[in-house]
Parts: sequence; C-alpha cells; structure tokens
Amino acid sequence: MDKAVLVPIAQGTEEMEAIIIIDILRRAGMNVKVAGENQIVTCARGTKIIPDILIDQLEKDSVYSAIILPGGANGTENLQNNPHLEEILKHNAKKGALIAAVCAAPTILVRHKLMPIGSAITSHPSVSSQFENYNYLNDDIVRDGNIITSRGAGTTLDFVLAIVNELVDKATADRIASDIQYKYF
Amino acid sequence: MDKAVLVPIAQGTEEMEAIIIIDILRRAGMNVKVAGENQIVTCARGTKIIPDILIDQLEKDSVYSAIILPGGANGTENLQNNPHLEEILKHNAKKGALIAAVCAAPTILVRHKLMPIGSAITSHPSVSSQFENYNYLNDDIVRDGNIITSRGAGTTLDFVLAIVNELVDKATADRIASDIQYKYF
Repeated sequence: MDKAVLVPIAQGTEEMEAIIIIDILRRAGMNVKVAGENQIVTCARGTKIIPDILIDQLEKDSVYSAIILPGGANGTENLQNNPHLEEILKHNAKKGALIAAVCAAPTILVRHKLMPIGSAITSHPSVSSQFENYNYLNDDIVRDGNIITSRGAGTTLDFVLAIVNELVDKATADRIASDIQYKYF
Repeated sequence: MDKAVLVPIAQGTEEMEAIIIIDILRRAGMNVKVAGENQIVTCARGTKIIPDILIDQLEKDSVYSAIILPGGANGTENLQNNPHLEEILKHNAKKGALIAAVCAAPTILVRHKLMPIGSAITSHPSVSSQFENYNYLNDDIVRDGNIITSRGAGTTLDFVLAIVNELVDKATADRIASDIQYKYF
C-alpha cells in the first residue's frame, strides 16, 4: 500500500468538491489518481475534466491508501451504479483503506454496505433520509472507523485537510492551510 | 452588457481557484465563459480542463459584467503575457466592468495599469513586494472602485461570494452558501 489515493469522478460530479480534494491531496505529496467514467467528464456545473485513467481500466485488486468520493446528485448516482467501482470499493474497505465521501456521495457507502449499521455518518442534508439505520450527525466532518464523511462543497476544504491530517500529518495540513491562506480550526 | 463573466485560464492556473469561481458564479445564474490559452489547460496541480473557448477566439471589444482572474504562479505569468487578454482587460476596465483577481493574479492588474497608483489591493503574500506603489492590505478581500482582489485558494470561496453579492445580490450569495453548507461571514 503506497500513498496512492483514488478519486473517482463521473458525469455530474460536483467539480468544486472533486478539484479541492485532488488539489489539496497533491499539495500534500499524495499520488492522486483521478479515475473517470468517461474520457471527458462533464461535471455538475459544466466543467469538462480529462481524468488520468478510466474507472474501467483500474485493476480490481489494487489497494489504495484512500478512496475519496466527491458528490453532486448525478455524479453520485453514476458512481453508485458503476459495478467496477463497487468491487474496488468493497475490496478496499475490506483491506482497511480509508474511504471518504462528501455531499451526496455518502449514500454510496450505505448502498454498498461499506460500513456497519449504526455507524456515525453525515452527508448533504438533502439526502439525509437515506441514513435511517445509521447514527446520522449534523457535523461538518464525521469519522467512524475507516470512514470519513462530510456535508457539501462548502465543507470540502476542511474535509480534505482532515484527510491529510490522517494520511500524512497535522504539520502538512497546517502548512497547506497556511500556503493557501486558509484559516481553519 | 449582459451577465456574462469571463474567467481566463492558462497552463499553471490554480485549479481550485478557477473551479470555485466558475462553479459558484454558475450557481448564481451567471453566464460564465471559461476562456483557455490552450485547447486543454493543464493546471498547477495537474488537473486537465477543456475550456469553453480559446482566449484568442474572444472578440476584443466584448464588454463583460466581470472578468475574474484565478492565480497560480505560472498561470498568472501566462495570462499576464497574453496580449489578446491584455487588450480585453484594458477595454473592460475602461468600460467599468468589474475586474477581480486572486492569489498571484493581482499582479496582472498592476502590470497592465488597470487601477490607479495608490489603490487598495491585496494578493498572495508571496508576491506582495510587487505592489510598492499601492495601498497593500493584508485583508482576505479588498475592494477599490471596480477592482476586487483576494489572497489565495483558501479565500476564493469568500471572494466569489462577495462577487455574487456585487453582481447579483446578497440573498443569492446567502442561498448558495447555504446550499453548499458553507458558513461564511
């Protein structure tokens, strides 16, 4: 397991969420692989991104340090319905990789049963009804075991800095926050 | 002058800054035109974006509601050295369009003399020495006349919400902040 982090994106992925995650993790020295469902991914607000690799080209048994799922309603649905990604997520959850999701994407964790019933979780409030059997919290960032979830594009920077804190260290998260002139707590 | 907003990007543009600006302005209902120096723009942390149009294809006498310049050291240098963009910026500044820049990009405003000597300005601290003849402030967002400047990727969300407040209204900025679960002040 190296420091590779997988960030899957699909048509309708929320681009702010995806790019904040990718940018900050690369600033932290992580090897970020942006895997797209298509050769050109058109995001929720029209941004066209060329991914590093297609999701279908990923090896099913690769184990990552982390898989981070950006949200966006349609993007989440597309990622959720991708059987290749489903296998990769299940394999990585079993191997103890960090799995993180923001906005609508925490629904993917529930759909694929990647965390035990009753686990603490958060999401965008618009999809909160999908977490009936979980300990749903209104916090910006929720950690339970190897799962980290968060609420939306406006909490993504704190979310990814928390992930850097976890995968690298607090000094690196603090250095990045300072470099980008971000005041976080 | 319609609600069109121009966001120029180039090799080395800071992708978080560009995408936060584009995404939020589109959420606010603005017609955002992403103009790239190349057909595929490789940003500062490797994100590959396909712009809506090439900078060289823009009509020189178009007047926008606003032109917003994202930063990134190399991206700023490339935008600064683009003579076609220089003409568009000068024409729009003369016509009273809002001109805004974040991170390293406020140096473009100085280089092209888009604001009077002594004007209030901010930027990423790493380029602050380039504003000797200006009223350099350490605030996250600085407004002087039709110019708004800001400090870095970590202040870009507040910066673009301030622009929405200016170009649309406060209710729209507040609605977007709430939609994306962002607490701003």
